Amino acid sequence: MTLAERIVRGELRAAARLMRDIDDGMPSAVAELKALYPRTGRAFIIGITGPPGAGKSTLTDKVIAAYRAAGKTVAVVAIDPTSPFTGGAILGDRIRMSRHATDPGVFIRSLATRGHLGGLSRSTADVVNVFDAMGWEVIIIETVGVGQDEIDIVRTAHTSLVVMVPGLGDDIQAIKAGILEIGDVFVVNKADRPDADRAVRDLEMMVEMKHPGAGEWWPPVLRTVAQKGDGVAELVGKIEEHRAYLHTSGRLQQFEQNKSALRFEELLRDQLFARVREKIEHGGDLAVTIRAIANREQDPYNAVEALLARHLSE
Amino acid sequence: MTLAERIVRGELRAAARLMRDIDDGMPSAVAELKALYPRTGRAFIIGITGPPGAGKSTLTDKVIAAYRAAGKTVAVVAIDPTSPFTGGAILGDRIRMSRHATDPGVFIRSLATRGHLGGLSRSTADVVNVFDAMGWEVIIIETVGVGQDEIDIVRTAHTSLVVMVPGLGDDIQAIKAGILEIGDVFVVNKADRPDADRAVRDLEMMVEMKHPGAGEWWPPVLRTVAQKGDGVAELVGKIEEHRAYLHTSGRLQQFEQNKSALRFEELLRDQLFARVREKIEHGGDLAVTIRAIANREQDPYNAVEALLARHLSE
Repeated sequence: MTLAERIVRGELRAAARLMRDIDDGMPSAVAELKALYPRTGRAFIIGITGPPGAGKSTLTDKVIAAYRAAGKTVAVVAIDPTSPFTGGAILGDRIRMSRHATDPGVFIRSLATRGHLGGLSRSTADVVNVFDAMGWEVIIIETVGVGQDEIDIVRTAHTSLVVMVPGLGDDIQAIKAGILEIGDVFVVNKADRPDADRAVRDLEMMVEMKHPGAGEWWPPVLRTVAQKGDGVAELVGKIEEHRAYLHTSGRLQQFEQNKSALRFEELLRDQLFARVREKIEHGGDLAVTIRAIANREQDPYNAVEALLARHLSE
Repeated sequence: MTLAERIVRGELRAAARLMRDIDDGMPSAVAELKALYPRTGRAFIIGITGPPGAGKSTLTDKVIAAYRAAGKTVAVVAIDPTSPFTGGAILGDRIRMSRHATDPGVFIRSLATRGHLGGLSRSTADVVNVFDAMGWEVIIIETVGVGQDEIDIVRTAHTSLVVMVPGLGDDIQAIKAGILEIGDVFVVNKADRPDADRAVRDLEMMVEMKHPGAGEWWPPVLRTVAQKGDGVAELVGKIEEHRAYLHTSGRLQQFEQNKSALRFEELLRDQLFARVREKIEHGGDLAVTIRAIANREQDPYNAVEALLARHLSE
């Protein structure tokens, strides 16, 4: 039996194996992913991102508990940076979520960040597809940061939570602009801190400036104290409201189209590059070209143009 | 006269114009960059990154002042997220650095982050090359974050500063692994806060675990209170020590090779994708393919393989 067949039957061990292959970039994983693809599109996918120190893991833990209480199965993809020592994820199954470790209705998978450009959002999407094809009802993608990487990752979720924290100073201005587009629900966590009001006001003002039109989703700004569970019920309520909105507004179809376009572009970009690099490495002139660029004897723009002329068909 | 010729003569207005063209992805910029490329490789490039709220702008301000006091000209590339309202950088010439606004020996340029995968580190490198070809002696790249984007951006600097701040909680574990590879000098800013000792100890332990070999650079962990200027002189001293190390150890040559390889790959990746996308958009079957993927009638892996077979020569 193939891994894909075993995964469809619900074998966790087969799923873990395929995810490891995806993480390692094994070519064999692609055939399995192809076989699983027609069975995807059923799960509800929630993205959670925010700056370091915002308390995302604690909040994720509470959201898991809420969905479990409602009888849903929950899979989590936690994006961890690669450790330079082990080459793998350092956080493992994050400590905060360990109380779900014995619950068969929860599956947590850490995904290591790799050095490859664009590679992370691609493998995240692959892992999400494995969970989806397997029948997990709710899939949570948790990632640390507010950069383009995180935006690309979280963009593939139906509902994206952006978790902020009071006291980020001026940097909040920089962060806000980048995340405004992706946040369906904003959360100011650690809202018992003195400067929480300012953070809430700042976010509300940003949403108002964007001014969603009639019939469009107006992203709410919520307060939570995840550690104590404060505000979590309201948060989950808003997540479900957004989910309902996607269905009733017809936005779900548009969302699937955008996601497919994004996914297709990422794959195309990666595959194109992989194929052409293989060719030039075999040709043996890569090292010569790079030395010439380093010595300023050739510029990188002309070098790339020459290569493209040789390897792209008319 | 071309923009490149005017830039070599030191015309700031021509440089600003070319940088705008780079930011906008204008094809005409490439010819100018080709002409400037042979004149690059003279500037000393410093990268500064760290999580939001670490006080990087204040620290950058102090580092600028120190190099100005030593008689060096300083150009700054500040990476800002794109505002969804203006499409441009929201921070402009960052407020903290505005006291250098009237100093002709300082030039600050904000670069907006774009939605393009991999596009930011490419345009940062282009802007740095413009400054370099123009004869600026020190170029500082400042970026907010600790993700793969920031790592790619800062990797093209001779000396990379990673600025941390006390009180990031568990997330510091996640951040540290990602940045360890790129940090030549670690700084715990706001070191007058109570938990500064822990942050310093954590970073020192990470460096020790990595254990640089004999003759290799051992990244120091410094304390600063940028607001008061505390520790800045020592920081600049360490930056200069690292610069000297690059020269005496022969690492500079290796650094230029790696940077050229990175640059070449990025350009190749972007150009390949741009060319092939143009072809398929003209062909008109892109929309059909994406709809089929969204409806799970086709999987994205097969779709991409079919395209590659059509557009890559043997």
